[in-house]
Amino acid sequence: MYIEELAESIRTFEGVTRKKPISDIIRIFETVRPEYGDAIVDFGDDAAVIDIGTDDVILFAADAIWGKIVNKSPWWTGYTSVVVNVNDISAMGGKPLAMVNVMSSSDHNSTGEVMKGIRDGIKKFGVPMVGGHMHPDTPYNSLAVAIIGIAKKDSVIRSDTARPDDVIIAAYDMEGRVGQNSPYSWDTTSFKEPAVVRERFMVMQEIGQKGLVTAGKDISNPGTIGTLGMLCEVSRTGASVDLRKIPRPDNVDFEQWLKIYPATGYILTAKKEKSAECIEVLEKAGLKAAIIGKIEEVRKLDIYDDSGRTTVFDLSKDGITGIGI
Amino acid sequence: MYIEELAESIRTFEGVTRKKPISDIIRIFETVRPEYGDAIVDFGDDAAVIDIGTDDVILFAADAIWGKIVNKSPWWTGYTSVVVNVNDISAMGGKPLAMVNVMSSSDHNSTGEVMKGIRDGIKKFGVPMVGGHMHPDTPYNSLAVAIIGIAKKDSVIRSDTARPDDVIIAAYDMEGRVGQNSPYSWDTTSFKEPAVVRERFMVMQEIGQKGLVTAGKDISNPGTIGTLGMLCEVSRTGASVDLRKIPRPDNVDFEQWLKIYPATGYILTAKKEKSAECIEVLEKAGLKAAIIGKIEEVRKLDIYDDSGRTTVFDLSKDGITGIGI
Repeated sequence: MYIEELAESIRTFEGVTRKKPISDIIRIFETVRPEYGDAIVDFGDDAAVIDIGTDDVILFAADAIWGKIVNKSPWWTGYTSVVVNVNDISAMGGKPLAMVNVMSSSDHNSTGEVMKGIRDGIKKFGVPMVGGHMHPDTPYNSLAVAIIGIAKKDSVIRSDTARPDDVIIAAYDMEGRVGQNSPYSWDTTSFKEPAVVRERFMVMQEIGQKGLVTAGKDISNPGTIGTLGMLCEVSRTGASVDLRKIPRPDNVDFEQWLKIYPATGYILTAKKEKSAECIEVLEKAGLKAAIIGKIEEVRKLDIYDDSGRTTVFDLSKDGITGIGI
Repeated sequence: MYIEELAESIRTFEGVTRKKPISDIIRIFETVRPEYGDAIVDFGDDAAVIDIGTDDVILFAADAIWGKIVNKSPWWTGYTSVVVNVNDISAMGGKPLAMVNVMSSSDHNSTGEVMKGIRDGIKKFGVPMVGGHMHPDTPYNSLAVAIIGIAKKDSVIRSDTARPDDVIIAAYDMEGRVGQNSPYSWDTTSFKEPAVVRERFMVMQEIGQKGLVTAGKDISNPGTIGTLGMLCEVSRTGASVDLRKIPRPDNVDFEQWLKIYPATGYILTAKKEKSAECIEVLEKAGLKAAIIGKIEEVRKLDIYDDSGRTTVFDLSKDGITGIGI
C-alpha cells in the first residue's frame, strides 16, 4: 500500500494544492480575450510568449517567493527570486535579458539583505535587475520579480504541446543540497562558479534550438510529479511514470525528493527517436537525465513501481490549476 | 510667505519622501555593473530600455499600488495597476505589449475584485495580462504588476536627457475627478470610452516619433513638482517653474493639485522652437498643455509667482531618490 500513500501525500502536498486558485483568477480574464492580440502563449506556461513581429519572440514571466521564507531568510529570498525567474525563461528555451522587482518592506535591514541576495543572483546568472518599485512602509516584507527573455519563435519550449506516446524525461542537477529554509528546496547554484551555473541553465536553449523535445517545464514548487501533472493538464493528456527510473540523490528521502523544487530541474517530453540525443545534451551540460515514463492519451497521471500502480491525478475530473479543464 | 509654505509642503509630502530609499537600494547593485550589457537605461526612469539587436527596443517596468489602497478598494487597486503600468510605457513613447502580475492575498473575495479591476483595465487600455504568480495564503493583500512595451530606439523619451534652457511643458487630461480613495488621485479614465482613453495615452508615441521633446516623465505619486524634481535629478539639472502657468482644474485646491497623481499627466522638456508643435499635438489629443518654466544649469528646483520665489529642492545637496547625486 506504500504507493497509495505516496500518491495521496503528493496530491495533498501544499506545493500542489496552492496552485488551485489560478483557474478562478484566469476565468475573470476570459471576457477580454479580444485584447490578447500579440500573446501567443499566456497563463499556464512558465512564461508568456509575445510576438514582436520578427523571428524572435519575447518571453515574459513573474514569480515571487513563498511568504514564509521572506522573513526567515531575506538574503535567500532575493537570491532565489533570481533563480526562479531565470528558470522560467530557460525552461522555455529562452535567453534571459533583464528583471524588474517590487519590494515591500517595513524594515530597512531586511530590504538590504534581500537586495544583496538579488545582487548575488545577478552575479551568478548574469541577468541584470533594471528597475522596479519600492514600498518602504508596508507592515510586511514581500518580493515580486518579473523577467523578460528572448528566443527564436521556432525554438520555444512550451508545456501545452506534449502528445500521447512521447517519452517523459526528468533532468536534475544532482550536485545540490537541501536548502536551509525548507526541506523542499534544493540549492544547486549558490556554492558553484557562475560559469558552471550558466552552462547548466543554458542547456535548454540548445535543446530548443535543436528541436529535441515536444514540450517542457521547469520543476517548481509542486515537485516532479506535480509539475508533470501541470504539463499534462495544459497538454490535455495523461502520463504514466515508473518511479524506479526517477534519478535521485543518495542522501535524500524519495518522497521528499519528489516534492522538492530542484532549482535546476526539468520535465521534458520527446519523440522516442530524439530522446537519446536529448539525454546526451543534458548530461554533457552536467545534469542527470533519464526517461521516467510516457505521455498517455487517457487524462490520468499514474505512478507505478514493484509494489503496484495508482493514479495521482485524474485530470479529466480534478485539475491542479484547473486551467486545462 | 505663502510660497515658502507651499515649498515646504511639497518637500515633506509623503509622495515625495517615500522615494528616498531608492538610491540605497540601487547602490547595492553597483558591484555587478558588468552584467548590465543589454540595458541602455535602467533605474531612475519610468521604464528600463533593453536592446534586442534591432531598431526596436523593449521597455520594461514594474509598479505597485500603495498598500493603503489595496484594502480600501480592491477593484480600484486592480484597475489602477493597469493605468500606472501603461503610463510607464507611454511616458517613454512606447507601445505597451503585455503585463504580468504577482497577487498576494488571504481573502478570495478581495482577489476576485482586484482581478475584475485588472480585467476592466485590460478592456480600457487594450493591453493583455499574460501571466503571473498567485500567493493564496498571505496575511496581507498586495498587487505588483510588470509591463513590457516596444519603441523605435530613436523615439524613446527618457528622463535623464533634459538640458539647460529647454522649456518645461506640463500636460494633463483635465476631464477628470478626484479619486474616491485618496485626495491625491485623479481619475481620468474609468468613466471614459476606451477609444478616447487610448488616443490620449498614445499621444506620447507620436511625440517620441516626431522628436518633439528632449526628455519626459509620467507625473506620478510625487506630483507635478516632485516628478519634475526627479527628472532634474537624473538629468543633473535644475529648473524654475512659474506656478501661474500650471494648468489646473477650477474645482481643485492648487496645493492639492500639485500633489495629485493625474493618471494622464506628463512633464516634458523641449527645445523652445519645438514647444509650440509639441503643445499642439498634446492638445489635439485632448490634453491641456502649457509651458510652465525652464530647465536651469544650477541644480535647484525653484518655484515662483506674484508673491515671490523659493527653492523646493536643492538637488546638489538633497536628492529625491538620491540617484543623481
